[in-house]
Amino acid sequence: MTGRIRNRELRSRIVEAEEAAQLIRPGDNVGMSGFTGAGYPKEVPGALAKRVQKAHEAGDPIKFGLWTGASTAPELDGALAEVDGIDLRLPYQSDPVTRAKINDGSLGYTDIHLSHVAQRVWQGFFGKLDVAVVEVSGITEDGALIPSASVGNNKTWLEQADRVILEVNSWQSEQLEGLHDVYYGTALPPHRMPIPITHPADRIGSPYFHCPADKIVAVVETDSPDRNSPFTAPDETSARIAGHILDFLGTEVESGRLPRNLLPLQSGVGNIANAVLAGLDSGPFESLTAYTEVMQDGMLQLLDSGRLEFVSATAFSLSSSALDRFNRNLGDYRDRILLRPQEISNHPEVVRRLGCLAMNGVIEADIYGNVNSTHVMGSRIQNGIGGSGDFARNAYVSIFMTPSQAKNGAISTIVPMVSHVDHTEHDVDVIVTEQGLADLRGLPPRARARKIIETCAHPDFRPALRDYVERAAHASYGGHTPHLLDEALSWHQRYVREGSMRAG
Amino acid sequence: MTGRIRNRELRSRIVEAEEAAQLIRPGDNVGMSGFTGAGYPKEVPGALAKRVQKAHEAGDPIKFGLWTGASTAPELDGALAEVDGIDLRLPYQSDPVTRAKINDGSLGYTDIHLSHVAQRVWQGFFGKLDVAVVEVSGITEDGALIPSASVGNNKTWLEQADRVILEVNSWQSEQLEGLHDVYYGTALPPHRMPIPITHPADRIGSPYFHCPADKIVAVVETDSPDRNSPFTAPDETSARIAGHILDFLGTEVESGRLPRNLLPLQSGVGNIANAVLAGLDSGPFESLTAYTEVMQDGMLQLLDSGRLEFVSATAFSLSSSALDRFNRNLGDYRDRILLRPQEISNHPEVVRRLGCLAMNGVIEADIYGNVNSTHVMGSRIQNGIGGSGDFARNAYVSIFMTPSQAKNGAISTIVPMVSHVDHTEHDVDVIVTEQGLADLRGLPPRARARKIIETCAHPDFRPALRDYVERAAHASYGGHTPHLLDEALSWHQRYVREGSMRAG
Repeated sequence: MTGRIRNRELRSRIVEAEEAAQLIRPGDNVGMSGFTGAGYPKEVPGALAKRVQKAHEAGDPIKFGLWTGASTAPELDGALAEVDGIDLRLPYQSDPVTRAKINDGSLGYTDIHLSHVAQRVWQGFFGKLDVAVVEVSGITEDGALIPSASVGNNKTWLEQADRVILEVNSWQSEQLEGLHDVYYGTALPPHRMPIPITHPADRIGSPYFHCPADKIVAVVETDSPDRNSPFTAPDETSARIAGHILDFLGTEVESGRLPRNLLPLQSGVGNIANAVLAGLDSGPFESLTAYTEVMQDGMLQLLDSGRLEFVSATAFSLSSSALDRFNRNLGDYRDRILLRPQEISNHPEVVRRLGCLAMNGVIEADIYGNVNSTHVMGSRIQNGIGGSGDFARNAYVSIFMTPSQAKNGAISTIVPMVSHVDHTEHDVDVIVTEQGLADLRGLPPRARARKIIETCAHPDFRPALRDYVERAAHASYGGHTPHLLDEALSWHQRYVREGSMRAG
Repeated sequence: MTGRIRNRELRSRIVEAEEAAQLIRPGDNVGMSGFTGAGYPKEVPGALAKRVQKAHEAGDPIKFGLWTGASTAPELDGALAEVDGIDLRLPYQSDPVTRAKINDGSLGYTDIHLSHVAQRVWQGFFGKLDVAVVEVSGITEDGALIPSASVGNNKTWLEQADRVILEVNSWQSEQLEGLHDVYYGTALPPHRMPIPITHPADRIGSPYFHCPADKIVAVVETDSPDRNSPFTAPDETSARIAGHILDFLGTEVESGRLPRNLLPLQSGVGNIANAVLAGLDSGPFESLTAYTEVMQDGMLQLLDSGRLEFVSATAFSLSSSALDRFNRNLGDYRDRILLRPQEISNHPEVVRRLGCLAMNGVIEADIYGNVNSTHVMGSRIQNGIGGSGDFARNAYVSIFMTPSQAKNGAISTIVPMVSHVDHTEHDVDVIVTEQGLADLRGLPPRARARKIIETCAHPDFRPALRDYVERAAHASYGGHTPHLLDEALSWHQRYVREGSMRAG
């Protein structure tokens, strides 16, 4: 296994995970690698959790600040949340145990635009980063670090932390070497320069992380798979949503508002995203590119079929079977994929310049086009805003997708007023459900309401939405965005009270 | 007067405003110059309004789409709204007649991030621009157009319109020639390149607009002043807000999180903004710069005192007396001021690169740090989002400022839940009232609530806010951002019902 650690000095620092975990001091802010279950450290977090548990049993209430790229996996977030080892978590999570602790008020969580994290750590806004725990796939002879299956904020963690613990995971493909593009040109203002990317395939950095050897206090060898996000096959609802989006893109091309090969795609994960990508695989568009956060199964399929020419991302988010295929044939993909730091994959400057087509999911949207991406019933956080704001605000066209109903029809995802806002009407161009696609560009609020209700809402909920709009038009305090304040959140109130938004 | 029109061919197209207005066809989308009452056309809009009135009296319901840079003045917005001549207005307004028509539902208004407007017109998202009506301060021998007191979207209007009507206003200073920087390097993706600005003073374009002479269908000579925004002197509340901000900036410099000369300032207009700028004029900071939308009285004062080295903006927004002084001595300022198109003055790429310090006003903020900039009681639009989103999202530090109360204490500007969201908690670093400054960076929602209530809310409203938070912590559906849905908007409901948010 030590074949992955080609640097002699760092080989001498190999220890077990338990020993490495001892190097983290109570109260430390710890920056860990990991982005959507790819490239997170596999053993030190568990060892740290065990240490926390013992300390807590002994009456010592130690905790840590936990900063990552984005979501990780049960071995990291789950293990540390389970033992109440996290004081403040940022910038994104999707772990059930962590989520439960956040929502019972025992775990502090700061939800941040993913492009903002690195710069705010550099700016010193979150305090000092003490330790970095970063998975790499190898170490070169001269001590350069070969990144793993995600880049995330690792460059920043390695630079900002006083002490660095590396996990070298020999399960990751050796062919990852050379695939990454770590940009070392960022700076704090007034010293910032333009980021010289004008195409998703542009390489502007180094394939390696560079870290002074004297900061690396421990190296842990692991051989563990990334968490496998299960592939969620498109269902009928997702396929219908995808169909509406493909029709829309076709119309945009025909009208000359989009080039024939579209513009760089940004897409989340899950079955709607997979359905859209599957649709693109049988659609009329060729020579596609992606400038996005994660590469998921659907994009791998598009690379296989040759429809997709290039993917720029910050992490892989592949199912078990896709990952097998990908790792076996990584050499075939290497010229068509690169992973960047998330401050670059999500950078407003680059997203705006390239003109990404942003496709993101929602929890709910309202009749005026405001979007809630994070809070169920306005208070219970699901995951976080992630990169959706980085892309939606700066996209060429910002598309938000959702089935028109949730919880077997108990919830309408189109409501009079969203219970929490992550994306304002100013940043929402298109809302699409299986019912249809509402193109909201240029429309004033009252017209948006008509279009969203008649196009996107489930027919069961349309009469009540129309009724709200009609009464609001007459009884609202102001008439630009008519609302009845005593009813605006009543659908959510009914759901909390009765378990359904449907009138009894 | 024809001395301002040095091009012989264009001199031959001089007509009266009434004749020019006849060249606009019913239903046309008309792009007019104007940004905060500077550089708007003075006569054609009024002539158009008269024509509309006659047509309406004759039973012909003609209307026009009206697109501008931002707000204008009574002679433009007011005149056309008064006669119901506007079908759809975008992207910003602050006119009382227009506002009333928007809020009675008779005038459609699309409120847009100011940086988004030009690109969306280029993308064809708002339909065809038919006519441009643009004020210039002169025309050179070879037909280049010397911009006026604002640049706004004029470059885009001149390029996109089929027909161009120019107003040449000899009231504007002849010394404006050479002061502007009109960037001609923008493009649609996939052809966009980095915008090469790394300092507010960087010149990257032309001092002139370039427009094919054959598109210029009429030239109207005017000699009319810009609307004079009255100077609002700092009152005690504003001075206290300014004091808190200056203390905060001082602390940031001391802690090394800001350079000694700060970073480029962005500031709105009004008495809080003037108080902050007045504070800077007597504070410890030297060699300041501004990268902002408008140059107002406070910035002129800072230029006079030598504290401010350079201002980049898209428009002047000066009071009558400041404007007199400025126009008389324009030569002295010319090396320290430039006006750019608003797509550049507000460009996320540049704002983020430069690391602006964004200072914007609010209508209300909530205990979790969400900000409402546009809608009184969630439905009645005041002005619009303007450039606040362009700056807040991309700023180095995003500061929102407001007195803690409005309407003589009937309204608390800190509420349990804002009735409309323009800036989400993700984009709000600091909230400041005369009571104090809440630094929210890195804080999770519950901690934000404590800090905002105890620091920013007026003491009269603190007990009720604390009570809400305490009860929400136990009774909320989810505990990340605790809310009581049946009470969240109750303060607004009470105001609408009783004229006060204070409990009876």
